[in-house]
Amino acid sequence: MMDDMVGLAAVSLLGVLEQAYFSLQVIYARRKFSVSPPRTSGPPEFDRVFRAQANCAEYFPIFITVLWTSGVFFSPGLSSVCGLLYLYGRFRYFCGYSQSAQGRLAPLYFSAQVLWVLIGFSSLGVVFSFCRVYLRVDPIQVVWSALPLV
Amino acid sequence: MMDDMVGLAAVSLLGVLEQAYFSLQVIYARRKFSVSPPRTSGPPEFDRVFRAQANCAEYFPIFITVLWTSGVFFSPGLSSVCGLLYLYGRFRYFCGYSQSAQGRLAPLYFSAQVLWVLIGFSSLGVVFSFCRVYLRVDPIQVVWSALPLV
Amino acid sequence: MMDDMVGLAAVSLLGVLEQAYFSLQVIYARRKFSVSPPRTSGPPEFDRVFRAQANCAEYFPIFITVLWTSGVFFSPGLSSVCGLLYLYGRFRYFCGYSQSAQGRLAPLYFSAQVLWVLIGFSSLGVVFSFCRVYLRVDPIQVVWSALPLV
Repeated sequence: MMDDMVGLAAVSLLGVLEQAYFSLQVIYARRKFSVSPPRTSGPPEFDRVFRAQANCAEYFPIFITVLWTSGVFFSPGLSSVCGLLYLYGRFRYFCGYSQSAQGRLAPLYFSAQVLWVLIGFSSLGVVFSFCRVYLRVDPIQVVWSALPLV
Repeated sequence: MMDDMVGLAAVSLLGVLEQAYFSLQVIYARRKFSVSPPRTSGPPEFDRVFRAQANCAEYFPIFITVLWTSGVFFSPGLSSVCGLLYLYGRFRYFCGYSQSAQGRLAPLYFSAQVLWVLIGFSSLGVVFSFCRVYLRVDPIQVVWSALPLV
Repeated sequence: MMDDMVGLAAVSLLGVLEQAYFSLQVIYARRKFSVSPPRTSGPPEFDRVFRAQANCAEYFPIFITVLWTSGVFFSPGLSSVCGLLYLYGRFRYFCGYSQSAQGRLAPLYFSAQVLWVLIGFSSLGVVFSFCRVYLRVDPIQVVWSALPLV
């Protein structure tokens, strides 16, 4: 089973590297705008970079949870592709937010939509597994065998 | 083994949906009290909603970690039930905190207690597995076989 | 396979207990410096404790992700040892930051280095697994069999 999961592991690792990149950008912004820890606010340019990183960090565990739930219970391939799209959306969100508060919106909506797709895949995977394990019915097979009747 | 884990996956997914609900409430509060990003503070009503969501988000990865450690190494059924209680406690915490700082306390203590139960289950599961793997002793069997001697 | 993972589960659980300890320190600091929720800033002594906890909480899901990726795809033993070093570094970071902003730096660099080692292990593990699964080549065996030719 671990063989199917290597794509999910690669996407997770890419997500970790992206978060490391965002954290470095906050360190550079702290130096540029002279905002020393423990302070967390300064000029609006700094605040935007700081909040962009904080928002991505807040969503990271949610992303990892649905990436793996969807990957293990629905499809590792589709989940990995969605995971890459999400990380791309988050990169564009970070760059957009760093420039203006308005610039964060389009990529934020995009990454939220990808997250909802992963939540949908996870839900399908969990419901299908419930049917197989507890009702001893395979929904995919049921749909498949009913098709000639349509 | 994945069959036993479907309950844990369902609880994790419910946790993700709960976090999504809390995030939406912050967005509504931002609109209602006119607190535009990157600002994170405003009137006390907004601050309470913002902090309630931030606190739940901070505890989410801790919850997921003990839910799965407890579920995989101790009991998937008991862990799923505790997971549901924790998510219920967090929902009451969010609603209570949104109304008053005092209102957050009772559900906060409740969800902390459930988290400690999950930490206890995880510890038992890890210690039992250590005994089985490294000492080749099954603690449950030892206790069971010693019972007639009591 | 679960037998190899018990060390990773033990380190994860230790990480959860460490986070619980940090959270308690914030509660004590809130009482000591009279900073009631939802406020998140007060005298510099409080701000340092608050930020130390927030920074550790932000890195916790990243740590758990690379700990398990490295443990499952590279080596559970080496990853567990790195995990313990990371948690030790974070403990020294929290204590150092609580005393002065300068005091956080040395243990912060140390824990960042350990995190990069875990990221390196994870990358090796993922690349090796990709080669085995998709190219049907085992990189370790290739290196091993090429050694007599050197």
